[in-house]
Amino acid sequence: MLAVLFDTFGTVVDWRSGVSAAVHRVGMARGVEVDAVAFADAWRAKYEPSMKPVRDGRRPFVTLTELHRENLTATMAEFGLELPPDEVDDLNHAWERLPPWPDSVEGLTLLRERHIVGPLSNGDLGLLTRMAKRAGLPWDVIIGSDVTHRYKPQPEAYLRAAAFLDLEPAQVMLAAAHNDDLAAARRCGLSTAFIPRPTEHGPGQSRDLQPSSDWNVVATDVIDLAHQLNART
Amino acid sequence: MLAVLFDTFGTVVDWRSGVSAAVHRVGMARGVEVDAVAFADAWRAKYEPSMKPVRDGRRPFVTLTELHRENLTATMAEFGLELPPDEVDDLNHAWERLPPWPDSVEGLTLLRERHIVGPLSNGDLGLLTRMAKRAGLPWDVIIGSDVTHRYKPQPEAYLRAAAFLDLEPAQVMLAAAHNDDLAAARRCGLSTAFIPRPTEHGPGQSRDLQPSSDWNVVATDVIDLAHQLNART
Repeated sequence: MLAVLFDTFGTVVDWRSGVSAAVHRVGMARGVEVDAVAFADAWRAKYEPSMKPVRDGRRPFVTLTELHRENLTATMAEFGLELPPDEVDDLNHAWERLPPWPDSVEGLTLLRERHIVGPLSNGDLGLLTRMAKRAGLPWDVIIGSDVTHRYKPQPEAYLRAAAFLDLEPAQVMLAAAHNDDLAAARRCGLSTAFIPRPTEHGPGQSRDLQPSSDWNVVATDVIDLAHQLNART
Repeated sequence: MLAVLFDTFGTVVDWRSGVSAAVHRVGMARGVEVDAVAFADAWRAKYEPSMKPVRDGRRPFVTLTELHRENLTATMAEFGLELPPDEVDDLNHAWERLPPWPDSVEGLTLLRERHIVGPLSNGDLGLLTRMAKRAGLPWDVIIGSDVTHRYKPQPEAYLRAAAFLDLEPAQVMLAAAHNDDLAAARRCGLSTAFIPRPTEHGPGQSRDLQPSSDWNVVATDVIDLAHQLNART
């Protein structure tokens, strides 16, 4: 294995805790009552639908940061939250300030001793770069969706990432907490690793609790993935 | 300053020592006498001319690794060096295994405490990623010429790098040992830093020994650049 690329939101960082904490802080500062966790879930729920017109070619490529901001203003309207534009921008940058899961930094540090590590995320390069600096994620390389110009699960999102690294698809592994992401990567010839994140969507999470297929590796977390891969090479 | 991007070949790594050492090893292994330093200079001399048709739009974009390989086979013919294809590829990867200048790793480590650091190089993403791992260059992000699809000094090479970081040109500094590179970056609105590398081209170097303009910073090396920039912020 030469490169291990990671789904990021949910797999490496905990978006629900990070976004809801940022929303909570904004509400406190404004003296407004907001259900911060519900707000975070509502904001994130717009993520997939907002990428669809771009994937379908009905809308020119726009970065995830732009989609996040559109989805944020829609969510604010639903929750009756009003903010001046610079505070909207700042809240939108909550996605650059997400906390890593407890094992992520140590696991990536172990992995990168023998492999190229990087995100393979729908996030854009600027967002992912600032997230990595803030969270201390020791990526070797960042290939944002604005570099491949495709949103997962479009095949080119995976294939172009491998091509930019001058690697064959089979020389690249996608590690993700989401079975559908791994299925799309496998269809492109990538190697696959499943890492469960059973609280990504909160305590009542019902999806992605188990691997849905015989992925190349099933690991308990990123540290375990590093131990399994380093033991093979 | 939010991002400090570096010209790489010559500014961060010592291509002449690295390439000539690789050529010397190949000659020794093959029992062939090759003037390894002359070979390295002849190979590098083809670098600028080989990018010209791409810059001029007469040739579709090809990566620097591909140009390097074409230039290598031409140089081998000049020097009467014959190798099987896999050894040609391996020698071509000498550009991924260049030694950093003695101050580069320490200087970048200091700089990245307060700034985003990355290459702004005509190298491609795969080459730059493997170079960084090998040399221990602590980049936050790598924007290869295959990401911007432009070769310096084309303006888009600088402007697209800033745009990928979601920064204004003035929020990005180019650090380089080459005055012409800095002049092109300044025309695009980037901030500029000159670092002399008086032996990049060997002991008889006559160019780029001094700054040719009032660049925003003139530093003795990357460590000095880090001290100067960190003191400002």
